[in-house]
Amino acid sequence: MEEFEVDVLAEVELTEPVLVEGLPGVGHVGKLAAEQLIEELDSTCVRRVHSTHFPPQVTIEDGTAELANVAFHAIEVEDGRDLLVLTGDHQAQDGEGHYGLTETILDVAEEFGVETAFALGGVPIGELIEEYDVIGAVADDELTDDLEAVGVEFRDDEPAGGIVGISGLLLGIGDRRGFSAACLMGETSGYLVDPKAARAVLETLEAYLDIELAYESLEERADEMEDVVRRIQEMEQGTPTPSDEDLRYIG
Amino acid sequence: MEEFEVDVLAEVELTEPVLVEGLPGVGHVGKLAAEQLIEELDSTCVRRVHSTHFPPQVTIEDGTAELANVAFHAIEVEDGRDLLVLTGDHQAQDGEGHYGLTETILDVAEEFGVETAFALGGVPIGELIEEYDVIGAVADDELTDDLEAVGVEFRDDEPAGGIVGISGLLLGIGDRRGFSAACLMGETSGYLVDPKAARAVLETLEAYLDIELAYESLEERADEMEDVVRRIQEMEQGTPTPSDEDLRYIG
Amino acid sequence: MEEFEVDVLAEVELTEPVLVEGLPGVGHVGKLAAEQLIEELDSTCVRRVHSTHFPPQVTIEDGTAELANVAFHAIEVEDGRDLLVLTGDHQAQDGEGHYGLTETILDVAEEFGVETAFALGGVPIGELIEEYDVIGAVADDELTDDLEAVGVEFRDDEPAGGIVGISGLLLGIGDRRGFSAACLMGETSGYLVDPKAARAVLETLEAYLDIELAYESLEERADEMEDVVRRIQEMEQGTPTPSDEDLRYIG
Amino acid sequence: MEEFEVDVLAEVELTEPVLVEGLPGVGHVGKLAAEQLIEELDSTCVRRVHSTHFPPQVTIEDGTAELANVAFHAIEVEDGRDLLVLTGDHQAQDGEGHYGLTETILDVAEEFGVETAFALGGVPIGELIEEYDVIGAVADDELTDDLEAVGVEFRDDEPAGGIVGISGLLLGIGDRRGFSAACLMGETSGYLVDPKAARAVLETLEAYLDIELAYESLEERADEMEDVVRRIQEMEQGTPTPSDEDLRYIG
Repeated sequence: MEEFEVDVLAEVELTEPVLVEGLPGVGHVGKLAAEQLIEELDSTCVRRVHSTHFPPQVTIEDGTAELANVAFHAIEVEDGRDLLVLTGDHQAQDGEGHYGLTETILDVAEEFGVETAFALGGVPIGELIEEYDVIGAVADDELTDDLEAVGVEFRDDEPAGGIVGISGLLLGIGDRRGFSAACLMGETSGYLVDPKAARAVLETLEAYLDIELAYESLEERADEMEDVVRRIQEMEQGTPTPSDEDLRYIG
Repeated sequence: MEEFEVDVLAEVELTEPVLVEGLPGVGHVGKLAAEQLIEELDSTCVRRVHSTHFPPQVTIEDGTAELANVAFHAIEVEDGRDLLVLTGDHQAQDGEGHYGLTETILDVAEEFGVETAFALGGVPIGELIEEYDVIGAVADDELTDDLEAVGVEFRDDEPAGGIVGISGLLLGIGDRRGFSAACLMGETSGYLVDPKAARAVLETLEAYLDIELAYESLEERADEMEDVVRRIQEMEQGTPTPSDEDLRYIG
Repeated sequence: MEEFEVDVLAEVELTEPVLVEGLPGVGHVGKLAAEQLIEELDSTCVRRVHSTHFPPQVTIEDGTAELANVAFHAIEVEDGRDLLVLTGDHQAQDGEGHYGLTETILDVAEEFGVETAFALGGVPIGELIEEYDVIGAVADDELTDDLEAVGVEFRDDEPAGGIVGISGLLLGIGDRRGFSAACLMGETSGYLVDPKAARAVLETLEAYLDIELAYESLEERADEMEDVVRRIQEMEQGTPTPSDEDLRYIG
Repeated sequence: MEEFEVDVLAEVELTEPVLVEGLPGVGHVGKLAAEQLIEELDSTCVRRVHSTHFPPQVTIEDGTAELANVAFHAIEVEDGRDLLVLTGDHQAQDGEGHYGLTETILDVAEEFGVETAFALGGVPIGELIEEYDVIGAVADDELTDDLEAVGVEFRDDEPAGGIVGISGLLLGIGDRRGFSAACLMGETSGYLVDPKAARAVLETLEAYLDIELAYESLEERADEMEDVVRRIQEMEQGTPTPSDEDLRYIG
């Protein structure tokens, strides 16, 4: 297997498409938002990326195993710009993998004619939140005015810790490669899967792209996720899985 | 040394061989089961794989050092499908190593004409077990009916954490390369080397392959493994081995 | 992206230039000192280095995202040797990255005609400091006399733990490649961003290079740095960011 | 810099040379023993190996910085087999580095005509020791009888945890490449730098090689080492060096 392998699942012609990335991260804000887009709108899975930089793992869904991957979904929008939505269960496992995966994502985006990219995510506040602000970051200011017009806030030196992972690199490397890229980050406590922050992020995107979304299934999905988290925590507390450290001494 | 080196120890012609993998993991279920097959039936060690992704280590058995490796054992079964059994003391030490080792394993399997692969393992339950169920996972459903017929249970979204390591990748990459692959996981508390879970897994395999196994030596083998684990843990707790961190300051 | 990518921002002819490196480290002494040089004297940013060995991250400054990098600044000094000052927010994330980044730095330095290199840093004392000594280290003794003449102290076997990171390698690899290289380390408690230690280091450099520096803004810059460190630590302590470990189980 | 770079410092013709390796490890037994040989007998430093798999670090000795390395010392023995002694301050920092460094060491050994290799080390017992036994391990039994004749003990399945690091790989890879290799491990509590264990190991080597050694300076060397260890531990406990984690957020 190559370091990054792109499987072609379908070919779709997109009009002025916008890349929307939502991978796991703080509060799962980005992933929740991206999945909502895919479910809500009529989408086709067009590309799947496997990588030796993903965890060596299959996930089990509906009784079937699936090798760690991220996938691109094409969404054709009537009277508007089409979307290319990237989501999945994993970020890369190491720094080199993050850089390489970002390049691979931008290669696919280029192939579909993408020139504008939005990286969705959460920014942890460390306390419960009353009003769900969305903070923006850009590498050049081409998108700033339009995003401020739909309520995105740009603040000097925030987030203070920078933006880590694929979202940050889509901004940084995307800019180097000539994309107009912005990061849209929903404020979230950081403690829980946060569908309200995901909704806040989606609403800015909805206004910017002039599309219409319903949000019922988002609340539902958030409930399911909380459930999964709870089951896993119970399982993890109950069971001391042997580490590699233990395993390698067994004759 | 190459990243993955395959030593040819013997050449054997196999008939419709089935790959059976059992490397160290939860409750050592897979390793116990694979070793039982090798001991119980008439086996020949045919290939040995060394790798820079294994720990930099030799094990000492019967006073002799052996470089970290996994090995393939051929078992000719009268009136049935032959077996190619993979076991060893190690999984790879990093993600890239897991992916590469899985590809190497499948290369060897292909060379022997394998089209069906079973990855054996344990799934941790976190409590003592009365009835030893065997849970299955597949990447496509070709094997599902036959495995259900011999008592393997397929459950939606279980194991919830997916399947990590070589077993998971044999399913995920195996499927991509055209193998029929299944993972057979014995439920185990997760606390101890578990011969009962290993037996449960072997019994499904016995029924599926229509072979006959005896289990007397299995408990004994589990006791020995448990013993080694205990001695090593004692040694590790008693002795503060200097870490690399300490060592690099010594002039 | 290549492992190390050097962007050319400006071309400047330098006279007998001296490389001065100040990257993050103990007490941020080196980084503070290098930034003071850039701010105090008339400088031009001439090269920027990105690397897959930097953290996968953008920083946000003045509302704009910038991909992890280190940068070279040219300073033309009237009636004296010119300076090529390297600073940035990151060291490499792994050993291989440290070695490769050091080679890349020396490549750029060579291109500008550098033959002498100073790596600035701090040496932790673990207690409050009254007199801010500057300790020197060299790989060959060409620079020793001149540095002792401006107050740098050379002590047998100090620092006892050696010099780790880019500063250490500039000495070690620089020497192998024919540079005259020295490390100038300000004694610091090690607990805080330390502008007094940075000043002590700069004063030896000032005397050695026969240039003149002002120090008013140094304390201010140290306060700002301290501030950023504090805000980030608060954020990190307040918010349990989900680790990759958690994330990979969420379907 | 290449992954592994071998500097040629001197050319010496050796007669039936024996490789003796003593790098940092449990109780620093191997390193103490190897350094004793170099000091005690008339030695010439013939090769030095640098590697990107060593820590990114220079050590300071007698006021001069030296890039992380291991070095080969040639010792010509009158009326006996010559020695090629390898020692240094570092093991590799990662698994791949351990494998690659071992291959490099064996390449150099081959170049000098070495066919027999001894890896010296300590085996941790976890309690104070009265009688300093030396445990042996071999990959094939060619050397077993001769080593037992000079008091080395061979025990089934000991050390239980196998042999980790360069010493283990010299046995495992050395055997694959046709060397006669043995590991000589002095029993040690594991808590301290242990000159008594080093002496026990050297005495078996002395008898095997029919050479004569004095041991006065050994205790002294152990005291110095212990001293360095203590100073560094004090420094580390007293000073919270900022981690990379902290550093990367500093603007």
